[in-house]
Amino acid sequence: MPPRTRERPDEAAKDHVRLRMTVAYDGTGYVGWQLQPEGVSVQLKVEEALGRLFQPVPRVHSSSRTDTGVHALGMVVHFDVAKPQWRMEPRKLVLAANAHLPTDIRVMDAARVRPDFHARFDASGKQYRYTVWNESAENPLLRTQAWHFPRPLDLAAMRSAARALVGRHDFLAFSATPGYERLSTVRNVTRCDIQRSGSRLTFVIEADGFLYKMCRGIVGTLVQVGVGKIPPEAIVPMLAARDRRLAGMTAPALGLVLWKVYYRRKGRPATAVEVGGEVGDE
Amino acid sequence: MPPRTRERPDEAAKDHVRLRMTVAYDGTGYVGWQLQPEGVSVQLKVEEALGRLFQPVPRVHSSSRTDTGVHALGMVVHFDVAKPQWRMEPRKLVLAANAHLPTDIRVMDAARVRPDFHARFDASGKQYRYTVWNESAENPLLRTQAWHFPRPLDLAAMRSAARALVGRHDFLAFSATPGYERLSTVRNVTRCDIQRSGSRLTFVIEADGFLYKMCRGIVGTLVQVGVGKIPPEAIVPMLAARDRRLAGMTAPALGLVLWKVYYRRKGRPATAVEVGGEVGDE
Repeated sequence: MPPRTRERPDEAAKDHVRLRMTVAYDGTGYVGWQLQPEGVSVQLKVEEALGRLFQPVPRVHSSSRTDTGVHALGMVVHFDVAKPQWRMEPRKLVLAANAHLPTDIRVMDAARVRPDFHARFDASGKQYRYTVWNESAENPLLRTQAWHFPRPLDLAAMRSAARALVGRHDFLAFSATPGYERLSTVRNVTRCDIQRSGSRLTFVIEADGFLYKMCRGIVGTLVQVGVGKIPPEAIVPMLAARDRRLAGMTAPALGLVLWKVYYRRKGRPATAVEVGGEVGDE
Repeated sequence: MPPRTRERPDEAAKDHVRLRMTVAYDGTGYVGWQLQPEGVSVQLKVEEALGRLFQPVPRVHSSSRTDTGVHALGMVVHFDVAKPQWRMEPRKLVLAANAHLPTDIRVMDAARVRPDFHARFDASGKQYRYTVWNESAENPLLRTQAWHFPRPLDLAAMRSAARALVGRHDFLAFSATPGYERLSTVRNVTRCDIQRSGSRLTFVIEADGFLYKMCRGIVGTLVQVGVGKIPPEAIVPMLAARDRRLAGMTAPALGLVLWKVYYRRKGRPATAVEVGGEVGDE
């Protein structure tokens, strides 16, 4: 492995150009976004591709750390390149990076940003989407991108429960991991919709931030509401109890897509890094 | 290969049970539905799976013959089984067949039907859907199920052209192959919509029947309308001219899905073998 740049303080970055990219990937074959001691991560592939264009290999900072098997259409990342090396249009960077990436990872767009932009710390919100295929037989066209759930689901009950999740709540009960003891587990969920198109359910979940596996905890719980195992009115006491054992199961990774990341800087209105659009918005 | 049953006249079928199945498949790895001298077809895999359940191996008759790389969610087929061998519930047939099929082919449902039902000759209409990903970079989640078309498209012009295709017309200009000299090339297109969701376009095309590569000819032509190469008002004279060279290109196979097949028998209302539902219908 070639040597990597170390993260340096923003003050020292004046000899560098900071670039932002939106990255989409089919997470099926990866151990998630982040570099791991074992296995191939999306970050590794993106850094390797950028290493074919810039030296030393840029360290890529992401807005989110998607898990093994989770997909993305709108992952936002940033990285720095030494000024003397920056000779291309951002549009050319997209083409050049994609030429060195496998077909299951694509750079969707790129832009030069201010040297203090940070993909993670500047994010003001994120939207995830989760797909469930709700029919007795699997849909072969969705077999790597949807949770196949064969039992009938009560959509009205699920939507009622979803509404109870919207707002500023402590979501500890919906997160899979300990380690939050000293951090706030309060998040503001601004949207939790379930859209139906035939046998395909799309959960659209938007918040100012997400705890680890929170999205999948929400979907798993809503599906258990859908089969009658959890009543919709149990959601409010579930949030209050802050106990993971009271919420529902964690939905499998393959149905989840990091859809977009929102940024709002210095009083400007939020701007979405939009890739995929709404479900049936026209 | 074990011997196959020969198709016999329906009058002689009284010792047999006729079964109808809906089959879905990811066509990426197949030479199309139909058995071919070379390559693996979906029909081969379905007949092999049924051959694990019934002897002799049933010959499967399909509503349609999808091309190499074309997908299906609602392919309808029928086949016969000797009465002494028919001991299972249709629901069990779905599970048993799927246990012997690869994961990119699924039997969605099965039913016993009257011995004179014919998947192809009784079909009263079909719906195809075609997906275009219209952004400069490819969508890795759609890379085997959408035509990546990076140039901007004029959706209003495309929709205007699409409306001109609806109705009973001679579609010879939109079909790829000769051989129709002695057959009617008139078809009744009952629906030709383009739905947009972000950068994803879905063409919904419904007709009482389709000529060979007609759907892909329609989509290719509409996309050429979208880039300004063909004006929308050229569609009507194009139909009248009956000349393939005047219509647009044939869109690639990977974006096409046989969505559903309609049946109407003996004055009963049409019933859809519904699998996937509408785009954003709720």
